Amino acid sequence: MRPSDGAGCKRRKASAYGIRAGPHRRRQPETLPRMDQAELPQNAHQHVAFDDGLTLDCGVSLDRLVVAYRTYGQLNGDHSNAVLVCHALTGDQYVAETHPLTGKPGWWDVVVGPGRPVDTSRFFVICSNVLGGCMGTTGPLSPRDAADPATLWGTDFPPVTVRDMVRAQKRLVEHFGINRLFAVIGGSLGGMQVLQWAATYPAGVFAAVPIATAPYHSAQNIAFNEVGRQSIFADPDWQGGRYWQSGKIPARGLAVARMVAHITYLSEEALTRKFGRRVRPGEGHAGGPGLGMFGEMFEVESYLRHQGSTFVHRFDANSYLSITRTTDYFDLAEEHGGDLAQAFRGTRTRFCVISFSSDWLYPTAESRTIARALNRAAANVSFVEIASDKGHDAFLLDEPDFHRTLAGFIAGCAEHAGLHA
Amino acid sequence: MRPSDGAGCKRRKASAYGIRAGPHRRRQPETLPRMDQAELPQNAHQHVAFDDGLTLDCGVSLDRLVVAYRTYGQLNGDHSNAVLVCHALTGDQYVAETHPLTGKPGWWDVVVGPGRPVDTSRFFVICSNVLGGCMGTTGPLSPRDAADPATLWGTDFPPVTVRDMVRAQKRLVEHFGINRLFAVIGGSLGGMQVLQWAATYPAGVFAAVPIATAPYHSAQNIAFNEVGRQSIFADPDWQGGRYWQSGKIPARGLAVARMVAHITYLSEEALTRKFGRRVRPGEGHAGGPGLGMFGEMFEVESYLRHQGSTFVHRFDANSYLSITRTTDYFDLAEEHGGDLAQAFRGTRTRFCVISFSSDWLYPTAESRTIARALNRAAANVSFVEIASDKGHDAFLLDEPDFHRTLAGFIAGCAEHAGLHA
Repeated sequence: MRPSDGAGCKRRKASAYGIRAGPHRRRQPETLPRMDQAELPQNAHQHVAFDDGLTLDCGVSLDRLVVAYRTYGQLNGDHSNAVLVCHALTGDQYVAETHPLTGKPGWWDVVVGPGRPVDTSRFFVICSNVLGGCMGTTGPLSPRDAADPATLWGTDFPPVTVRDMVRAQKRLVEHFGINRLFAVIGGSLGGMQVLQWAATYPAGVFAAVPIATAPYHSAQNIAFNEVGRQSIFADPDWQGGRYWQSGKIPARGLAVARMVAHITYLSEEALTRKFGRRVRPGEGHAGGPGLGMFGEMFEVESYLRHQGSTFVHRFDANSYLSITRTTDYFDLAEEHGGDLAQAFRGTRTRFCVISFSSDWLYPTAESRTIARALNRAAANVSFVEIASDKGHDAFLLDEPDFHRTLAGFIAGCAEHAGLHA
Repeated sequence: MRPSDGAGCKRRKASAYGIRAGPHRRRQPETLPRMDQAELPQNAHQHVAFDDGLTLDCGVSLDRLVVAYRTYGQLNGDHSNAVLVCHALTGDQYVAETHPLTGKPGWWDVVVGPGRPVDTSRFFVICSNVLGGCMGTTGPLSPRDAADPATLWGTDFPPVTVRDMVRAQKRLVEHFGINRLFAVIGGSLGGMQVLQWAATYPAGVFAAVPIATAPYHSAQNIAFNEVGRQSIFADPDWQGGRYWQSGKIPARGLAVARMVAHITYLSEEALTRKFGRRVRPGEGHAGGPGLGMFGEMFEVESYLRHQGSTFVHRFDANSYLSITRTTDYFDLAEEHGGDLAQAFRGTRTRFCVISFSSDWLYPTAESRTIARALNRAAANVSFVEIASDKGHDAFLLDEPDFHRTLAGFIAGCAEHAGLHA
């Protein structure tokens, strides 16, 4: 069935915030008015709809699959220069341009752009919002039935696996007429997608860069996710997941979920360097006076509260539930009889596995497990641990060693692939 | 002013649960009916009241100070065999006997008891509920004004420092006619109290054992505490801290606070060993059916939810706020011009600093900072890192190396103190 491209649909608000502008023409005003998640309609995002739907690993078939995406750069004549960037838990497709809700720069514009490690003057870069997301791709905010657009999936949205996410991306990639991606790159949950791409479509991936990730989610990471989910469940405004009916969102629960997750993204060193034990005197806690025991606030508390309260404007709580669950379920070896090497047997993909020394959410040991499995599968793999004290977040930040490693690997692969600069 | 001893007050419920029974006569039934925090009156706990009150570091004077406590063993003739045990954030005075609310064994009965490392057939062991606690000592559950017993402090309870906690303990120790404690021992927040005792009352402590603790609270630990507090604040049943007026407690917020804290008490290895990625199939999440994305539950989730839901029956939310704040504020060096060694200058106390290799809440590096400061102060100090994969919780668990270390240090100190077995 022919997919319908979202380019023709009404996107008044979106275009007002530069969504339609290409990467080189984009506006980057200093301060855009902040919009709420609910104010930007799901179909305002650039998207493609597949009316034959998608059957998920859980057995449920989605009647219709919408994949929202952004691209940067030009696809070359033989469609051999495409790079798929996979985003993490709370990322989205706005990799290298002003974000339509926050007005902030793209989440990876230090890595993706003209002259950057993923050079958009050379490569055609695609990034799509993940299945289960809240920036236009099918997810809890989508209508359950096309005939009844007012009834959303909410928490009835079926469980999604990383393989389901990758299958949806594959549809988009085929929509562009691309048989083989030059590279698939991503960090964290994005890195899980990279591994899944290489395992599921080995002929479809020339080079793979899983960054700050793991072949499965650890008990500790499941536990942290569960705290976040329980915090959302505990918020009466969550309303059993049907908050979209009342228009009131579980902002407090989602903010606490974001706060606890945010701690896991930073290293203890980074928190100490940024905030130490500095106090903001006189700044009341939890709404100010009357709280004898909270007359002042540590700077780290103020920072976390800001992280929590801004997040709720750009992210949907049920999407947060869905995507954390996807992450928890990820266990690539399990699909292959418990042997991770089997996932990559016979692969001709070139791998560059990257970890960060102070990342305690996805520690180097987990990247090493990936690299060892690739070695056992006789794959072409290099493994680099970047020395950094910035924790898991390092993959999003200005880390010159990381960027040099990535640029070097891509340059080498491009030469092997016969892609000339 | 003469303190009034709580031994004479009515304690029907308490005695029914063995609170009055001595350590050697105690009953340890397998299953006691679980009571709620609110069902056990504050004055049901064995206590002593100091009617001259206590002036806190913040400048507020409490008109009346109640210290709830338990003792084990016999005080000798010259009052030289007393050991003060200091409890951690959610501990209490029921160290080595059945807990009156949970019916479970005392929280440290692997360490304290006849023939245990802290041998109650040899030492007189005292443990008191901390200031700000909820098991009988003055705290948010106490009346603000003795003339109006129905109006509780709640979150108007003034901020408490570790030094305030220690001052309250000192009053209790003096009440027993003890000038010098043979030893002060405690882990986590209990270890902070040990350090504070040694710094504030150097002549009053012969031996000090700070375990799994730190000389100040790190930014990361403040951040985790803040997540717990925000989770309580976010619960509408918290009612701005005045939930005691309605009788409804912020159970969901407090449970989430406990869950996140609990993760920090365990190591990643311990979580993996205990739960791995095992799933409880068919066991619904967040109240069962209707949640498409939560058809089953990981064992680690089930465990955390249990930890959260049982905790709320035995602990008061405002006490949790108060005591986490006390912990955040702790910074012993700050009292001494930023030089931790100054806190111990000229001390004659013998120290044994103990850490656990997999404790990431109070990592070994922080115990090493304590040991180095003691060395700079020319103190008598030994420092032991116990190899354990159980995380911060190791100090509460059956760790033979830890128990041998503790018993050995106590035996050596007893000999030096002229205490004969």
